[in-house]
Amino acid sequence: MAGAGRHDHGAVNVTNDPVLPRGFRAAGVHCGIRPRGDRLDLGLLLADEAWPAAAVFTRNRLLGAHVPVCRDHLRRSGGRVRAVLVNAGNANCATGEQGVADAHRVAAALAGRLGCATEEVLFLSTGVIGAPLPVPRIVEALPALAEAVAVDGVKTFARAITTTDTHEKIATAIIDRAGGAGRAVGIAKGAGMIHPDMATMFGFLLADVAATAPAELLCGVVDRSFHRLTVDGDTSPNDTVLLWTAATGGAADEALAPAVIGVAQQLCRMIARDGEGATRLVTVQVRGAESEAEATHVGRVIATSPLTKTAIAGRDPNWGRILAAAGRAGVPFDVARSRVWIGDAVLFADGRPHPEHESSAHRHLSAETEVTLGIDLARGPATADVWTCDLTGDYVRINADYRT
Amino acid sequence: MAGAGRHDHGAVNVTNDPVLPRGFRAAGVHCGIRPRGDRLDLGLLLADEAWPAAAVFTRNRLLGAHVPVCRDHLRRSGGRVRAVLVNAGNANCATGEQGVADAHRVAAALAGRLGCATEEVLFLSTGVIGAPLPVPRIVEALPALAEAVAVDGVKTFARAITTTDTHEKIATAIIDRAGGAGRAVGIAKGAGMIHPDMATMFGFLLADVAATAPAELLCGVVDRSFHRLTVDGDTSPNDTVLLWTAATGGAADEALAPAVIGVAQQLCRMIARDGEGATRLVTVQVRGAESEAEATHVGRVIATSPLTKTAIAGRDPNWGRILAAAGRAGVPFDVARSRVWIGDAVLFADGRPHPEHESSAHRHLSAETEVTLGIDLARGPATADVWTCDLTGDYVRINADYRT
Repeated sequence: MAGAGRHDHGAVNVTNDPVLPRGFRAAGVHCGIRPRGDRLDLGLLLADEAWPAAAVFTRNRLLGAHVPVCRDHLRRSGGRVRAVLVNAGNANCATGEQGVADAHRVAAALAGRLGCATEEVLFLSTGVIGAPLPVPRIVEALPALAEAVAVDGVKTFARAITTTDTHEKIATAIIDRAGGAGRAVGIAKGAGMIHPDMATMFGFLLADVAATAPAELLCGVVDRSFHRLTVDGDTSPNDTVLLWTAATGGAADEALAPAVIGVAQQLCRMIARDGEGATRLVTVQVRGAESEAEATHVGRVIATSPLTKTAIAGRDPNWGRILAAAGRAGVPFDVARSRVWIGDAVLFADGRPHPEHESSAHRHLSAETEVTLGIDLARGPATADVWTCDLTGDYVRINADYRT
Repeated sequence: MAGAGRHDHGAVNVTNDPVLPRGFRAAGVHCGIRPRGDRLDLGLLLADEAWPAAAVFTRNRLLGAHVPVCRDHLRRSGGRVRAVLVNAGNANCATGEQGVADAHRVAAALAGRLGCATEEVLFLSTGVIGAPLPVPRIVEALPALAEAVAVDGVKTFARAITTTDTHEKIATAIIDRAGGAGRAVGIAKGAGMIHPDMATMFGFLLADVAATAPAELLCGVVDRSFHRLTVDGDTSPNDTVLLWTAATGGAADEALAPAVIGVAQQLCRMIARDGEGATRLVTVQVRGAESEAEATHVGRVIATSPLTKTAIAGRDPNWGRILAAAGRAGVPFDVARSRVWIGDAVLFADGRPHPEHESSAHRHLSAETEVTLGIDLARGPATADVWTCDLTGDYVRINADYRT
């Protein structure tokens, strides 16, 4: 499975250990939105109490119905969440006022079942745009789902929220703090329509350590993770990332933040690696920028370039396309002082190509499923990594045939 | 052949008649940059005298060596051009100072042959980035090329400058003016790395009617043509569009401008239709914008969306992807008042989908090789059309295998 095993994010050790933080339970069922009975399509995350949460939503003008409804619930509950319900297979997007009413009905039905306030339930949808939500199927499945929640249910939940993903995405880090270790766990979905500013992507970041300011913490996390991820440059109307932390155990932000960033970055790597049709996880390394924002911007332009991405698919160490993509980013760097590399092979430096290193770069692209490439702009001290994947014929096939 | 036949651009009738304006001759030869002997790779456009010309170049930070050299020549000649020489197969880009020296040497060799000043020669390159220019092969071919120029040589020239294009691209319009009709002829190349702000694309716009202010005229033309064209969102370091008009016959801007715009727009349609791997020319129609610039921007975002482009490849009338692409353009339109269509079928209006029109849209996508789609933003009176093509598995194959 992609993303398995350990990966270091600075000092934080991130694993794919499927164990929820204390106080959270999860489950997934098949409710019938998707035709195939073995394909889960409804998932539930449940907290022991209504605990603090903060969310970041898509910036698309077209909004899935769940976006205004979740915003409204978070405002009315004072940012307290008891349950997060997610359906796949239907985005409840471009469905007008009916879509908003449908989202309310489902949230109210679950709240009734749980005996909590409706605004303490967040209900999210992902899938096809423009089809009416099959509310009765979802509502009928709620009793069985609420019954099924378990402390070891995270894998089932993670599988139930996928669409074109080939596998579920879970990342875990230990929060090392005085008074006993905590746990940060992230669950994500998404393989296409993935781009900075949020994609057809959900990220749920849970922890059993309290945050003093969840919204600020989440913004910092997203800037260093999901906003540095792109599969195809297309952003989705439904994207949502939620940070949800137990209110017990006292705040320990200095230990919580790196754990959550590590988990979120690992989810980004898993999403890029599982990008539609992808055969390679690509980490774009930008160095020597004037600011982190500039480095991120240049990295996004390279990571969005179809020519760079098809070259990786062809195992072609085509540094010229990387340099040309950086060249159109609007940053006035001096090409003659810049350097471009793939893996450990520097292919452009001192104002000229270095073809003697191309065979080494070709080996890197051929042998590794996680490839790195980068550019040094020679302008300043700032750096950023951006994650993407190669662009293959399978991406086209998946998206040409999605609805038909 | 794509783009054959007549097409109306307002009042201007544009054909693909391969006849040069009076006073221009052209030729193409195989000089050996490309291995296959039957593949032309060097073309020449020659004017009877050094006539006024204006050029627009790429805005990429990475510049092909010809860009600074041509800029310098135009400045030193006062914008007078006797000959335009173009090689394919090698972009002379990222080749450092050697590349600039090589470009100078070739231009000087042709000027010596023609008996004109070096700065009256423009020499342009397109092809692979980062390989040294094979100067001796080009210089050795100049005598035969200069010998071969003919009034009926435009097709050979147009073929010699192509790279991944499947055919040559020529568009012609009659300039209707008092004192006898003139002729505007455009020749272009380009199939990939095509995006607003200039792509791996050359456009040569010739006319036998003088312009009073060629640079201003050219900017207006490019804003309404090449800057509304995208194949893959990747811009190239070598893009150049040249307007070159005979100084004889007196100026007639009011007749010249629409003819040149019509020719340039037809070349854009031909480039989009011949986009790498494309099966459909796609015209993105944006209506109801506050300004023409806003309409063009939204059109570019839709035309660059991989999800919109793969849907067209799959003949899927996926209006949700069009609306989602417009939604991430940063223009605050009211989704509930907007309308989305494919062909004549309105698929989203009054805040809801209209699935009853999907079969009509599907027929349009399946039957027509030139498809239209669009959005009305319901914000204002401005409109723009943007041209692109569908994204197919063949695009990926062409670009994954380009150098290998």
